Amino acid sequence: MKTVSRIPVGILGATGAVGQKFVLLLSSHPWFEVRELAASERSSGNLYREVVNWKQTTPIPEAIGDLVVKECRPDLDCKIVFSGLDASVAGELETDFASAGYWVFSNAKNHRMGPDIPLVIAELNSEHLDISPQQQKSRGWDGAIVTNANCSAAVLALSIGPLHKSFGLKAVDVVTLQAISGAGYPGVPSWDILGNVVPFISGEEEKIESETQKILGQLDGDRFRPADFAVSAHANRVAVVEGHVECVSVRFTNKASPEEAIQCWQEFRGPAQELNLPTAPKQPVVVFSEPDRPQPRLDVNKFGGMSALVGRVRPCPLFDIKYVVLGHNTIRGAAGASILNAEMVVEKGMFPAGQA
Amino acid sequence: MKTVSRIPVGILGATGAVGQKFVLLLSSHPWFEVRELAASERSSGNLYREVVNWKQTTPIPEAIGDLVVKECRPDLDCKIVFSGLDASVAGELETDFASAGYWVFSNAKNHRMGPDIPLVIAELNSEHLDISPQQQKSRGWDGAIVTNANCSAAVLALSIGPLHKSFGLKAVDVVTLQAISGAGYPGVPSWDILGNVVPFISGEEEKIESETQKILGQLDGDRFRPADFAVSAHANRVAVVEGHVECVSVRFTNKASPEEAIQCWQEFRGPAQELNLPTAPKQPVVVFSEPDRPQPRLDVNKFGGMSALVGRVRPCPLFDIKYVVLGHNTIRGAAGASILNAEMVVEKGMFPAGQA
Amino acid sequence: MKTVSRIPVGILGATGAVGQKFVLLLSSHPWFEVRELAASERSSGNLYREVVNWKQTTPIPEAIGDLVVKECRPDLDCKIVFSGLDASVAGELETDFASAGYWVFSNAKNHRMGPDIPLVIAELNSEHLDISPQQQKSRGWDGAIVTNANCSAAVLALSIGPLHKSFGLKAVDVVTLQAISGAGYPGVPSWDILGNVVPFISGEEEKIESETQKILGQLDGDRFRPADFAVSAHANRVAVVEGHVECVSVRFTNKASPEEAIQCWQEFRGPAQELNLPTAPKQPVVVFSEPDRPQPRLDVNKFGGMSALVGRVRPCPLFDIKYVVLGHNTIRGAAGASILNAEMVVEKGMFPAGQA
Amino acid sequence: MKTVSRIPVGILGATGAVGQKFVLLLSSHPWFEVRELAASERSSGNLYREVVNWKQTTPIPEAIGDLVVKECRPDLDCKIVFSGLDASVAGELETDFASAGYWVFSNAKNHRMGPDIPLVIAELNSEHLDISPQQQKSRGWDGAIVTNANCSAAVLALSIGPLHKSFGLKAVDVVTLQAISGAGYPGVPSWDILGNVVPFISGEEEKIESETQKILGQLDGDRFRPADFAVSAHANRVAVVEGHVECVSVRFTNKASPEEAIQCWQEFRGPAQELNLPTAPKQPVVVFSEPDRPQPRLDVNKFGGMSALVGRVRPCPLFDIKYVVLGHNTIRGAAGASILNAEMVVEKGMFPAGQA
Repeated sequence: MKTVSRIPVGILGATGAVGQKFVLLLSSHPWFEVRELAASERSSGNLYREVVNWKQTTPIPEAIGDLVVKECRPDLDCKIVFSGLDASVAGELETDFASAGYWVFSNAKNHRMGPDIPLVIAELNSEHLDISPQQQKSRGWDGAIVTNANCSAAVLALSIGPLHKSFGLKAVDVVTLQAISGAGYPGVPSWDILGNVVPFISGEEEKIESETQKILGQLDGDRFRPADFAVSAHANRVAVVEGHVECVSVRFTNKASPEEAIQCWQEFRGPAQELNLPTAPKQPVVVFSEPDRPQPRLDVNKFGGMSALVGRVRPCPLFDIKYVVLGHNTIRGAAGASILNAEMVVEKGMFPAGQA
Repeated sequence: MKTVSRIPVGILGATGAVGQKFVLLLSSHPWFEVRELAASERSSGNLYREVVNWKQTTPIPEAIGDLVVKECRPDLDCKIVFSGLDASVAGELETDFASAGYWVFSNAKNHRMGPDIPLVIAELNSEHLDISPQQQKSRGWDGAIVTNANCSAAVLALSIGPLHKSFGLKAVDVVTLQAISGAGYPGVPSWDILGNVVPFISGEEEKIESETQKILGQLDGDRFRPADFAVSAHANRVAVVEGHVECVSVRFTNKASPEEAIQCWQEFRGPAQELNLPTAPKQPVVVFSEPDRPQPRLDVNKFGGMSALVGRVRPCPLFDIKYVVLGHNTIRGAAGASILNAEMVVEKGMFPAGQA
Repeated sequence: MKTVSRIPVGILGATGAVGQKFVLLLSSHPWFEVRELAASERSSGNLYREVVNWKQTTPIPEAIGDLVVKECRPDLDCKIVFSGLDASVAGELETDFASAGYWVFSNAKNHRMGPDIPLVIAELNSEHLDISPQQQKSRGWDGAIVTNANCSAAVLALSIGPLHKSFGLKAVDVVTLQAISGAGYPGVPSWDILGNVVPFISGEEEKIESETQKILGQLDGDRFRPADFAVSAHANRVAVVEGHVECVSVRFTNKASPEEAIQCWQEFRGPAQELNLPTAPKQPVVVFSEPDRPQPRLDVNKFGGMSALVGRVRPCPLFDIKYVVLGHNTIRGAAGASILNAEMVVEKGMFPAGQA
Repeated sequence: MKTVSRIPVGILGATGAVGQKFVLLLSSHPWFEVRELAASERSSGNLYREVVNWKQTTPIPEAIGDLVVKECRPDLDCKIVFSGLDASVAGELETDFASAGYWVFSNAKNHRMGPDIPLVIAELNSEHLDISPQQQKSRGWDGAIVTNANCSAAVLALSIGPLHKSFGLKAVDVVTLQAISGAGYPGVPSWDILGNVVPFISGEEEKIESETQKILGQLDGDRFRPADFAVSAHANRVAVVEGHVECVSVRFTNKASPEEAIQCWQEFRGPAQELNLPTAPKQPVVVFSEPDRPQPRLDVNKFGGMSALVGRVRPCPLFDIKYVVLGHNTIRGAAGASILNAEMVVEKGMFPAGQA
């Protein structure tokens, strides 16, 4: 697969916050080449650099800035598209693309819980991708939709997944402190968050609870059986730009000490690591030993933003252990996760070779 | 007690962050009159307004600004002192004052867990004050020490206390998002907290866990029997100036629904309310119905900063209910709580009438 | 005028950020009574408390919360309206109201620079109100429009106005550090301002330069002659909620030292003070002596938010003196200024007594 | 000079904020190799990684973390030292090192204004280094001290320097909005700066005014003649982590339009560029065309943090032109500037070849 000529890909919703992250991460990707950028009608027909309200800390990649933005219609010159579309339009547009033969790697919430849609974290449940042929058959699609998790669910799942595999989970309690970039741009008004905490994010807790169970569940023939541990989530918004902090307590089926959990995390490698996928972090879960780490401003960009950064692992008076985990919400929790899923699909040979 | 001539009081550590809050809250108090300000040797001998690094949003009360600051020695012209002393010196100095006949209402951590020291929230466990005669006797003190809780423990206890009395608590899980004012001045470096979360506050979790159990425990003869429910705390520092947010989950001995909990809170009144103490909030726990409240920047100063502000009460998949509570950390969690305790002691007649 | 029965007033744009400030300031006004609230069609017909997204730190005034919101049409039961309308609609709607006989006290930018529209700071140029009869005559209006200045221009003008009257101004240089509340709600995205400075606010510098000259100019028969000193402005947005900080340098016609400037400010009183208008601050310009004050978070709410707070007055190597001034942008720079103007109109007897 | 074996260097004050930046920038330097780390007595004798309170967003460079920290005494195994010492000790210690034969590249303020001490921005006044032999002779030193400018002065000077060379400066007015990292760690308390502006930084304005004149002045035989244009500075602290924003207005001897200024900046190259020094930015001054840029959070790390980033160049009603400039205060304004100066000294052959 990893030939000299790279696979052309497109980005849907390319001017948005997640779209910009796709642009950055894909601009120097060894397998994929950004050939198409699609956005709303208002932007189409113009150079990307002229219409994007670029809010990243590195410049627009030269070559991508000069691409002409197209409308989000399934007539793009590529067969893989990454979707950073807003939920208000993602449902229908992604269906249009999948129906027309595109493999859609979506960051939108719309299809995630669909009964035949895989919701994938490449280190944890890449076997869920095996439902794709059935998805294509039952829906009459030539393409397919593969989704990645909500940003908070992704960080949580990546940290509890290894524990679940090793010790079995019975209960998970999580309180999130989420960065404002998770809400896109313009997103959270500064009036709401400067010097403040908003102890509520609409729909977030439900997503964390249900998506985590789906990801760590089983693909059982033609349906997903969710994991049967209970999850309770409380979501807060805080004045941080990038990086979700989550305070997690877990109860195991088979008791494990903090030390055993740490060893489990440090040894954990998933198929994404075994296959040495380009976007896969060397170590999916990194454990900090400092008493006051990880911290979003200092640590979020370490390890390429693709690892779950765990700290403060200790016994819990109510559960078995508790800890804090930090993850990059727009990389591990969004664009990076989508790209890793696409790499897995390509590497597994699910994406028709002739199309690449 | 509430005569025309007010009771003279002193403030130990008057120039610090908590000391300044004492000054503000006592400057127009109907029972107490600030007669003495004491601080470090460096400040003593000067006018308060000349040595204090005043960091409050209202001006220094005129009359108090003109007081001469004294050293923290038990030769102040008053019999009640409020202590905002730093923990590095509070232990010994407060003992000196109590030994010399002063009633010390202390916000410092040093004596809180002492076996004969009451740790009081006036709405919840004012009967713990009854240990004072024994404290005086066994220690040979003419005065006494009464402590109030750690800021986070105070807010937590005020919200779970009514539930414990009505339904019995079996387990309490709390994750805090704490304001920087809790660390005093200069306190938290801006380098650490701007655009950041620090998922650790030294010693805080232990205090929350143990103090909550002491407050909601029983005074059993000559000793305190801590409440026997388990508490698990995770403490975070966030970029908020005033107001601690806490995400709480509780399990009851006798099941109660969110609606029953809300009714319990709305009906709850403690002895501080029944006695109509000047600093007692009309309603100790206020429940918000908006989906995204309470928020520290908008709500922390409502109701005089003395109520626990509860919101988002809902069922919990793991515990019985979960909710968020906000409290003013330097009022309800510090100076205001001390003053309310002093009012209770005076009203109960424990403080020798002749001394007032 | 100051009879027992208060004058009924209305608020246009009552649900917006400025509208909410009008509600707060007018809720306990001794002369005015809020009888009418008007907003967009979407809100009309509902109780104010049901449709307003209340973002103030004190609760909605009880009585006003229960008013039914109406549409912004000139059939309100009052003859004075305060306009917090958005500039996109204020121009036309305010004309409609003035034409229909209402006195409109507007915070919108649309009419400010109109050749027969007074732009008034009640301490400085209340004589500009004398153009109103001519405005009514030439436009065929029964009512009138009175505007107040842009928030930054208001703070600047209030601080340089007394100097101009005493020493004459030749040149004014100002660099602003403006709070996010100046942009309303949702206003500035948190993505743009968290840990950041935006060195640009669209249209702001032009407003500061031209409005300042109009305010400090002369009403010369039927036209305004702008003051002839030059003004240069640079506007920045910073991560502050309320309070604009401005660094000002001025050159005088008649030299004055920092001490003379300070004395000028401390002695300055305008007609608003002489008439003892309810919203007039006792001292329009307050001078701080501390080396590092004023600061928005600590000082903005002092003196009712209606004074210009000056500090760091010192000689300037390029101009004559330089200083920093802080003003409350949504009180002195918006709603409070409008209300003070209305008080002046009523006190001057310009507003027909029979209508009150 | 640029041989395979790199020149060993030491860092004084290696555990502090500037010291950490030196460590980061030197860890992969092509000419210099960090051989010695020196800090306070308290830290000496331990591994760097064990004593440093590392506050950077990238990890401690592996090899440097394993160095043993020494005391700041002139017995280090190198001949070039970079000083990030605190001003309270830098004066004497730097003298000790210079006296003992070390070339000291200092970021401390202590020696900057010394009559025989060069204060150098490598693009602007590298000829000031020619005073070094005289410095050595008159002071009897084998080594030398070379200083770089205060962070705000550095950014200002780099932006006005090219204009001065091309058009001559008559007057410069600057208002700064400075990041908290300029104050080191712990530095600015969060209580002072969260949601706030502090319109004062002790000693900063004097440094900006005098250092700018020295840098842009002439080395005239054995003394520096300061530039004779006047500078007026107002310094503010804002809630930004890294990157100083400065609003600048300038008056020229020979008139120049904004367009001519922009062309001047874009064409400007100094000796550091001509010699292609490793730390020299390709373009010392970069001009942004977007109306609202540069912004610290988005732009400060672009171009390696070594360029002055200019925007909003426009005519000024009072001066000739005005603009905004952003610079990285701990790179261009501190550690990076020192390193560039050292490169210049080495490249010029001033540093004895035998010592390298």
